[in-house]
Amino acid sequence: MDYRPTIAISMGDPAGIGPEVIVKALADPVLRHRARYVIYGMNELLHYAADLAELDVFWWRDQYQGHLKAYGFDVTVVDYDQYSILGTTIRSPSKIGGDASMRFCLDAIDAAKKGIVDAVVTAPIAKESWKLAGHNYPGHTELFAQRTGARRYNMMFTGGPLRVVLATVHIPLNSVWGRLNIGAVFQPIELIHETLVNWFDIEKPRIAVCGLNPHASENGQFGDEEERIISPAIFMAREQGIDVTGPYPPDTIFLKAKHGTYDAVVAMYHDQGLIPVKLLAFDQAVNCTIGLPIIRTSPDHGTAFDIVGRNKANPGSMRAAISLAIDLAVKKHKHEQDRRRATDEIR
Amino acid sequence: MDYRPTIAISMGDPAGIGPEVIVKALADPVLRHRARYVIYGMNELLHYAADLAELDVFWWRDQYQGHLKAYGFDVTVVDYDQYSILGTTIRSPSKIGGDASMRFCLDAIDAAKKGIVDAVVTAPIAKESWKLAGHNYPGHTELFAQRTGARRYNMMFTGGPLRVVLATVHIPLNSVWGRLNIGAVFQPIELIHETLVNWFDIEKPRIAVCGLNPHASENGQFGDEEERIISPAIFMAREQGIDVTGPYPPDTIFLKAKHGTYDAVVAMYHDQGLIPVKLLAFDQAVNCTIGLPIIRTSPDHGTAFDIVGRNKANPGSMRAAISLAIDLAVKKHKHEQDRRRATDEIR
Repeated sequence: MDYRPTIAISMGDPAGIGPEVIVKALADPVLRHRARYVIYGMNELLHYAADLAELDVFWWRDQYQGHLKAYGFDVTVVDYDQYSILGTTIRSPSKIGGDASMRFCLDAIDAAKKGIVDAVVTAPIAKESWKLAGHNYPGHTELFAQRTGARRYNMMFTGGPLRVVLATVHIPLNSVWGRLNIGAVFQPIELIHETLVNWFDIEKPRIAVCGLNPHASENGQFGDEEERIISPAIFMAREQGIDVTGPYPPDTIFLKAKHGTYDAVVAMYHDQGLIPVKLLAFDQAVNCTIGLPIIRTSPDHGTAFDIVGRNKANPGSMRAAISLAIDLAVKKHKHEQDRRRATDEIR
Repeated sequence: MDYRPTIAISMGDPAGIGPEVIVKALADPVLRHRARYVIYGMNELLHYAADLAELDVFWWRDQYQGHLKAYGFDVTVVDYDQYSILGTTIRSPSKIGGDASMRFCLDAIDAAKKGIVDAVVTAPIAKESWKLAGHNYPGHTELFAQRTGARRYNMMFTGGPLRVVLATVHIPLNSVWGRLNIGAVFQPIELIHETLVNWFDIEKPRIAVCGLNPHASENGQFGDEEERIISPAIFMAREQGIDVTGPYPPDTIFLKAKHGTYDAVVAMYHDQGLIPVKLLAFDQAVNCTIGLPIIRTSPDHGTAFDIVGRNKANPGSMRAAISLAIDLAVKKHKHEQDRRRATDEIR
């Protein structure tokens, strides 16, 4: 049987749909069979969400005592009951929500760094809550990078048949030109290559790179970034032995990737990558940070304060995020074992 | 029975795949039943393409005598045999190819202006050939606009369930900011509204407008074009009674459009609109110029010189372009009859 990893789940903002999508996703016995889970969050809210969804409680609760532990149960809730918010700040950002969701994240990251868990899945936080609590991070990605000491990282999105890495992220489209240089294109190529080898167990990944302009500029007819920036980055990566090609016309490359011609596509800007991902797999899209020493995935939606408490949240994206975290943890484990065995043989 | 329109088809560059996709598309008896056709092109090449595809000749030939005529046949080829190129410039741009494809287009446009045909479908031309022949147009769209005196026009693409209009077209992405102003967003909203009413027979079209930035800037967090340019254009159009909303996050709006929530989407730049169209309907995408007094559609591919003469061209996009031209011609005819009847009743 496959290695059965332990997945940490941080509950996200207590006033958001995090608790609901977590209990709904883990209600699936297949997911529970494939891994153990430690949820860093609040038992009260998870209970409430399970009640609304008419689900039996399937977890074991352990009150948080100020230090991290390993658990042998199928599902454990590490309960931070000091953050009780019921009745006060439901459905909106709050300082206490920011403090709580930051705590859940930090402990999940620490658990992964210590090897207590194999991967972290993050339920959505509210940036506004983090700000109210004095935590100035643009989002999970930057927090994870800082806490794990990763200086090079990129956002990857998976959805249906696509894996897409973004060279630039949540910035005005007009600011792309200030960020896009050879290094900014080379880095996601190199990181996704390493990720596909080490975490996805793909021996020789095939990577495609998008152009920036219509038809990838048709030999410079509509812009020169392909020639000045993107092609040199591809050349550098090929020199390192990476199987990467492009720049391709952005409006046809995703169809080829969909049909399996490539293992990943590097997109130059947010919507270039997210339009195809969400069109092919709206409720299944997963955000995964690459370049970190630990595995981190996340559903590709926000706190959705407007539908909290109505049992209307779709757990599809959370289920996909958990499933991807398990896949990566199993393959990473296998990959590390193989390497260890190879090293032993050499000795 | 529905009105049976006459569709003009310009054969495009003689050295390209135009002849092949035309004969393959019209080999479909359903298409031939729905309309009559006049092909402005070269009998020799159409014959050759039919031979390669093992199709019986299904058309009547009339040698071009320097003036346009109406025909009662199911399919007529108006044969410009003065442009014979066989054996000389196959599979590449040429001056004679530019002269010939320009002639086919001009005569097809004139036939539409005179009412001899109800719509024009254009097979692909090679810009390089046009240049060699001294015809300096960026493409069909601008030629059609100039010859029909249309000062306001936009490119629309249909593919599967989507209709997408572009506010800016084949320009470097970095040049979008020089073109995007309130008028440049308002015009495609107004033109697609008129087109959907007059040519698509949709009484109250619902139009969605994309933002420019990630998440449509999330209230100005990533850019201000939504507030400065796009929202005012939407406001102006709503003041005119058009059912138009937005700006929407570009990465989620096409999924809603796909599910039928909107009749058309206005995209701010080429790839924002073309990525979803080609992903959902690669071999079925059709380019249609809106704002013209005449109906003009086109397959969404080029001359594909590399596969000419191998019987490998896929006629799907040409078939879709012809089918759309028929639909529009039938609905435009009905719409004009209804208006005439209404005017008569008032008299």
